[in-house]
Amino acid sequence: MTRKIRYNRRKIGSIPGTLVYTGDKIADPVKISHIEYNGEMFQEQVISNLQSYKINKKADTVSWININGIYDLEIINKLKEKFCIHPLVMEDILNVSQRPKYEDFEDYIFVVLKMFQYEETTDDVQSEQMSILLYKGTVLTFQEHEGDVFNQIRDRIRNKKGRICNKKGDYLVYSLLDAIVNYYFVILEKLGERLERIEEEVFSNPKKETVAKIHYLKQEIILLRKSIWPIRDVVNSLIKGESSLIEKESRPFLHDLYDHTIEIMDIIESYRDTNTSLMDMYLSSISNRMNEIMKVLTMMSTIFIPLSFLAGLYGMNFKNMPELEMPFAYPVVLSLMIAIVIGMLLFFRRKKWL
Amino acid sequence: MTRKIRYNRRKIGSIPGTLVYTGDKIADPVKISHIEYNGEMFQEQVISNLQSYKINKKADTVSWININGIYDLEIINKLKEKFCIHPLVMEDILNVSQRPKYEDFEDYIFVVLKMFQYEETTDDVQSEQMSILLYKGTVLTFQEHEGDVFNQIRDRIRNKKGRICNKKGDYLVYSLLDAIVNYYFVILEKLGERLERIEEEVFSNPKKETVAKIHYLKQEIILLRKSIWPIRDVVNSLIKGESSLIEKESRPFLHDLYDHTIEIMDIIESYRDTNTSLMDMYLSSISNRMNEIMKVLTMMSTIFIPLSFLAGLYGMNFKNMPELEMPFAYPVVLSLMIAIVIGMLLFFRRKKWL
Amino acid sequence: MTRKIRYNRRKIGSIPGTLVYTGDKIADPVKISHIEYNGEMFQEQVISNLQSYKINKKADTVSWININGIYDLEIINKLKEKFCIHPLVMEDILNVSQRPKYEDFEDYIFVVLKMFQYEETTDDVQSEQMSILLYKGTVLTFQEHEGDVFNQIRDRIRNKKGRICNKKGDYLVYSLLDAIVNYYFVILEKLGERLERIEEEVFSNPKKETVAKIHYLKQEIILLRKSIWPIRDVVNSLIKGESSLIEKESRPFLHDLYDHTIEIMDIIESYRDTNTSLMDMYLSSISNRMNEIMKVLTMMSTIFIPLSFLAGLYGMNFKNMPELEMPFAYPVVLSLMIAIVIGMLLFFRRKKWL
Amino acid sequence: MTRKIRYNRRKIGSIPGTLVYTGDKIADPVKISHIEYNGEMFQEQVISNLQSYKINKKADTVSWININGIYDLEIINKLKEKFCIHPLVMEDILNVSQRPKYEDFEDYIFVVLKMFQYEETTDDVQSEQMSILLYKGTVLTFQEHEGDVFNQIRDRIRNKKGRICNKKGDYLVYSLLDAIVNYYFVILEKLGERLERIEEEVFSNPKKETVAKIHYLKQEIILLRKSIWPIRDVVNSLIKGESSLIEKESRPFLHDLYDHTIEIMDIIESYRDTNTSLMDMYLSSISNRMNEIMKVLTMMSTIFIPLSFLAGLYGMNFKNMPELEMPFAYPVVLSLMIAIVIGMLLFFRRKKWL
Amino acid sequence: MTRKIRYNRRKIGSIPGTLVYTGDKIADPVKISHIEYNGEMFQEQVISNLQSYKINKKADTVSWININGIYDLEIINKLKEKFCIHPLVMEDILNVSQRPKYEDFEDYIFVVLKMFQYEETTDDVQSEQMSILLYKGTVLTFQEHEGDVFNQIRDRIRNKKGRICNKKGDYLVYSLLDAIVNYYFVILEKLGERLERIEEEVFSNPKKETVAKIHYLKQEIILLRKSIWPIRDVVNSLIKGESSLIEKESRPFLHDLYDHTIEIMDIIESYRDTNTSLMDMYLSSISNRMNEIMKVLTMMSTIFIPLSFLAGLYGMNFKNMPELEMPFAYPVVLSLMIAIVIGMLLFFRRKKWL
Repeated sequence: MTRKIRYNRRKIGSIPGTLVYTGDKIADPVKISHIEYNGEMFQEQVISNLQSYKINKKADTVSWININGIYDLEIINKLKEKFCIHPLVMEDILNVSQRPKYEDFEDYIFVVLKMFQYEETTDDVQSEQMSILLYKGTVLTFQEHEGDVFNQIRDRIRNKKGRICNKKGDYLVYSLLDAIVNYYFVILEKLGERLERIEEEVFSNPKKETVAKIHYLKQEIILLRKSIWPIRDVVNSLIKGESSLIEKESRPFLHDLYDHTIEIMDIIESYRDTNTSLMDMYLSSISNRMNEIMKVLTMMSTIFIPLSFLAGLYGMNFKNMPELEMPFAYPVVLSLMIAIVIGMLLFFRRKKWL
Repeated sequence: MTRKIRYNRRKIGSIPGTLVYTGDKIADPVKISHIEYNGEMFQEQVISNLQSYKINKKADTVSWININGIYDLEIINKLKEKFCIHPLVMEDILNVSQRPKYEDFEDYIFVVLKMFQYEETTDDVQSEQMSILLYKGTVLTFQEHEGDVFNQIRDRIRNKKGRICNKKGDYLVYSLLDAIVNYYFVILEKLGERLERIEEEVFSNPKKETVAKIHYLKQEIILLRKSIWPIRDVVNSLIKGESSLIEKESRPFLHDLYDHTIEIMDIIESYRDTNTSLMDMYLSSISNRMNEIMKVLTMMSTIFIPLSFLAGLYGMNFKNMPELEMPFAYPVVLSLMIAIVIGMLLFFRRKKWL
Repeated sequence: MTRKIRYNRRKIGSIPGTLVYTGDKIADPVKISHIEYNGEMFQEQVISNLQSYKINKKADTVSWININGIYDLEIINKLKEKFCIHPLVMEDILNVSQRPKYEDFEDYIFVVLKMFQYEETTDDVQSEQMSILLYKGTVLTFQEHEGDVFNQIRDRIRNKKGRICNKKGDYLVYSLLDAIVNYYFVILEKLGERLERIEEEVFSNPKKETVAKIHYLKQEIILLRKSIWPIRDVVNSLIKGESSLIEKESRPFLHDLYDHTIEIMDIIESYRDTNTSLMDMYLSSISNRMNEIMKVLTMMSTIFIPLSFLAGLYGMNFKNMPELEMPFAYPVVLSLMIAIVIGMLLFFRRKKWL
Repeated sequence: MTRKIRYNRRKIGSIPGTLVYTGDKIADPVKISHIEYNGEMFQEQVISNLQSYKINKKADTVSWININGIYDLEIINKLKEKFCIHPLVMEDILNVSQRPKYEDFEDYIFVVLKMFQYEETTDDVQSEQMSILLYKGTVLTFQEHEGDVFNQIRDRIRNKKGRICNKKGDYLVYSLLDAIVNYYFVILEKLGERLERIEEEVFSNPKKETVAKIHYLKQEIILLRKSIWPIRDVVNSLIKGESSLIEKESRPFLHDLYDHTIEIMDIIESYRDTNTSLMDMYLSSISNRMNEIMKVLTMMSTIFIPLSFLAGLYGMNFKNMPELEMPFAYPVVLSLMIAIVIGMLLFFRRKKWL
Repeated sequence: MTRKIRYNRRKIGSIPGTLVYTGDKIADPVKISHIEYNGEMFQEQVISNLQSYKINKKADTVSWININGIYDLEIINKLKEKFCIHPLVMEDILNVSQRPKYEDFEDYIFVVLKMFQYEETTDDVQSEQMSILLYKGTVLTFQEHEGDVFNQIRDRIRNKKGRICNKKGDYLVYSLLDAIVNYYFVILEKLGERLERIEEEVFSNPKKETVAKIHYLKQEIILLRKSIWPIRDVVNSLIKGESSLIEKESRPFLHDLYDHTIEIMDIIESYRDTNTSLMDMYLSSISNRMNEIMKVLTMMSTIFIPLSFLAGLYGMNFKNMPELEMPFAYPVVLSLMIAIVIGMLLFFRRKKWL
């Protein structure tokens, strides 16, 4: 995952509500798709010309308009007018570093949150902003890129599978949120695997780079936490909010979603704890290694320093050194040296260095 | 205990409420037992064919149906229909990584929590999911494996011992929860013993593996905390909940249970603190050891380096070295060397290294 | 103080409310004393035979029955019946590892808390469980061992000293709690003295055992905190509780008691902080010591290694070494050596190692 | 940014409400500007003589009086009287170390907060106090120095751009707060860049000064947090406050502002975490470096110490050393030495030191 | 500041409300002064004989009685009776280790808090207890020693300066509290200066004593925090309390006071953070120093150990050593030695040790 914080880059002094897209420019054309369905009918369309497109919605259907790519301000402006979106909401949709939030504007509910995409090939996690607007009978969704998290939901609607076709727009919103939150578990699993790999590295073969890995992982956990933490409040607001757009039967589903967000936070917290513990482990492993190095040095020095002294002693050139003349002096000194070595080894064994 | 986090593995994009068993497949057949009792009568049956089984419950009895093994979706589906269980509840029952929670569906109360099983032989702790459904007059319990934590409750019912026979289903639920929570103390005692063993190891003989033990114990404490923490809310919801299924006389018992959950959290917190403290102790013990090693090296070096120099000095081959010719030079140098050794030893004593 | 956590050892699977004494068995016989008093009269009795004893309480007196020793289940059972005590309360009284708590059963109030006894001779702190039941006009107290914390209260009643004689049973309960909480300050003072002794040790002469002392003190602080923390809630419940057994005039006294419990928590928290800081200090003192050792080694080595090399150089046996033949070579080399020593000492002074 | 805390320097014992300017004296003259506008008209004036100046405000216009420089007590006093400002408010305006706060005096709302100015040339951040008083139809703003954060707002009013001209004074206050809070993001971005530079330094080339940089950055983060944290409450009070001066239509804008303050706090918290992590990294990098140094020392010593001993051994001057006479002794000893070197190198490779 | 915690030293088992002075005995006589004032009149007296003194208070004046020295129980008892002070309040006044608190007894309000006195000569901070009783029209203040914090307030009353003369007793209480809280900023500034001095010491010249300074400063910060923290609640209670003794017009002043207490807590918290950071810095500076020492040792050893070996090699006494006879062997060996030195220096440069 990119570790960078994306700052709220509205031009200083610009008018609040100014529409500025703060994400990366993308070459792909904006793609708008429209799905209309209820228990009996299903209709799907790609809208090429937003201007001329007319939303002939029937009274009892759910209309889901999904916009892929939010960098084209012209299209965005047309939508803004068509759906009477508050300028600040529009600004939040385009500001891809927006903190997840929920707002109730009576006519519609606005939810913005982060979506994560794991790419197998690069072992990388892409963050993307997702905005949802729930009107009576209509749901608008804005994505930065095209993703496949929602394809299963589309399939379910197409095949009239599951509860979704007989429910209102709020259930569609729940389904979208559920799909996004569920995908967090995948991201967490990947992060958990990386955590385990680092853990293994710390235990078996701690290298200089390991500490950088621990540091970067910590950064990612902090950023993930920052992105996911507010979602709990978003879901809670959906449950507690008095909005008439949320049907009473959807509450148990939202409750279930809320439990999932809490569980995600639990896992992230335990990751943080584990990561901190890994840093401690790494530091202790460096210290252990140092101890080992010092032990080798000390043992070698301690054994050979007295021996070298003895050798030096009898290398002196004094005239009057009676030992030098004695015939057994050399073997006696050699034996003394061996005794010193044995003594030292016993000393080390007693110190449990061996 | 297995340190792995069990992720909420619902297939990405699958319909909420889809029944998927996320635990390990087990060979044992699903076992369903049915106990019916009140103050006067007691009846026990093993249900082999759920299809044909008819629950001829009398009005004033408590009916306890226990399902051992939740991997057989066919059986689970039949139960779901028979007892009108909400699909999301059913999903939670099968999802063995579910966070403990309480939900009140007016007709019934749903409680899910973790049960721990300590195995003496392997010094291992097995976590298992336990789901309880309390209907008026009927209690449904779902276990992953067969365990013996509940056998004493069965015995009490069979032998009409204790209060349980004259009470409603809520008291049975309380008894089950009480048995589970009581068993946590056993797990905590085992963990406490391990903590003490590691503490002793840190003090008497800290090894390289000790830090891994501290790390793994910390992981287990984190996981245990994650499993037990929400139970406090579950019990609190049972007390505070307005459900008519919980009799007023059961409140003091639930209060008592609540106190136990708080006590468990207190103990876990003190374990965490102790564990952190052990890590500090381990690090200081490594440093102490290093100090000791360095002391030995420094003392040996500091004593012998000047001696070796002196020996080297008089090993030089200069023509004009008058000392070499003097008859008492050798004993004088030897005495000087002894004086150096004594001086050094006094220096070390003053430094309190000896 | 014993550092061990006393686990809630109810036999697994036993019936809730089963009376099991979980403390240590004691040889002393159970001693029951009965004091009856009001502003005018005072009567004291030791009850030997509980069975035949009749409590002929007058309407306007306070009756205080104190039970020393709670291991005799027979006596306990008689009391339970005589005073209609709820089985769970009885279980809590006998379970000596009970967390401090307050419960209001309309007819009576139940308070359980920890009492500490400091023994001068062994510098040891003994923890003891104290249970108090307040009925209208009657107070029951259960102690594990005989202690003298309450003797002054008895003396005050005997001598009609202070407010106590003209007050109801709730004031007696307050007096008992006040005596217990006041004694905590003594325990804290002793702990504070130990903390200071360790602090001094860390500064003047940190030894290997010091870290163990810090660790054990931390454990004791954790346990003390665990025992005292809930008392705040107990006292608060007494104040906020709507019980008619607590007179309005007793509120200021309970408020005062509440302030004391907060002050105790403040002191314990500051002890924790100080203890943590001591650990840091200890670690830094080890590092400082290591630095000192290394300095000695480095200075000795750095001075003598070049000297030894020089000596070795002129100890070589090459035929063609013109220096060896020169008459002033030896004094020149000696001077060079002295110059090296001086140069090194200057270098060390510049490095501020000397 | 200056790291110093600016203490609340009211002269000890002076009367509360005494007007004392606690900032730095500045040579620039006080500059008062007056802007009056509504949807149709716009009028701008620099007030040179406050005494004679008459505010002929029309009923439906917004009047914005901005005071640059607050050290001239005479001018301040005149304003105080003209606008009936509470003496404590006046004291807060002049006390440039005032904590951000919101106060509602029915007739007017008082908001004080910190404004930051980043100076590209010195890579320095200047903190400045900003006070805002919102009356019905009139807005008073007090700045320490002249800054250009508000120039864009002036331009918008002049050019009748944006919503601002058709709104009341509360929208002007919102615009000012929004401009200030938006500028925090710039400061945070600069701080984030510094954090990244330090991060890189820690990884690639940790120097002795790096730790000072980490420490000073931490200080700045603490001070920034201290300045920004209360702004959240200020904005919340504006939203929640019942003041009639805040129009209902301004609430969504204030909500948006509130979200921004929360996001700022999120970023600051993540900076703190990262900073702490950097300190850990730095410490581990020092330890790693030490390990490397020790490895070099140990390898050199361990290889040469046995060789030197061997050389010393055969440098002894004993008469009776048969090896010395043997013709192949020298090459054999040389080979032995080479074998020792190879053996040691293999040993180091096995230890993974090479 | 004395680092010692002053324990709540009520004699164990003594009656609650017993009057015991727990401070240090002082030789100075108790001094009681009486000031009576309103907008028109002012009268000041030193009361020598409390017994015979009659308080002939007029209806519309404020009467301020200040007692300097609280060790004379006789005088205290007379005051207690004269002003109907609750025995527990009296006990709190005398117990100089009382935690700051607020209590409302309908007839009067009781406030107790800590006052700090900085003594320039000894660079020491003295803590003193201050108790305030606010009756309708009368204010009682109890100080341990005579101090000059209140002299300015007396001067203001004498000189009819400021708002104070036209206000009720609650404004006098506010003025006293404001003077005390304002003085905290002085103490904080002194503490901040010490913090900066230690910071400088850690950076430029960390000594063994530095860590003790950091530790003691931390202790003082903890104690200060313990003394000041509850004052926030005291002031809040004055604002929120429903007491009729607090006039509505005094609320803004108390609000201002409340903001100051929050600011003080902010500063103390930032001191704590800085102090912790200093400890980290100190530890890293020790490690850096160790690294430097090791580098010197390693460089010296690594350069000379191979040289010494070479010298030793050619000091061997083997008969058959052809090199010794060669005429150029000695210069060749010398050149080899120089090459080794150069090689090592290049190696160190590459390692960035030089």
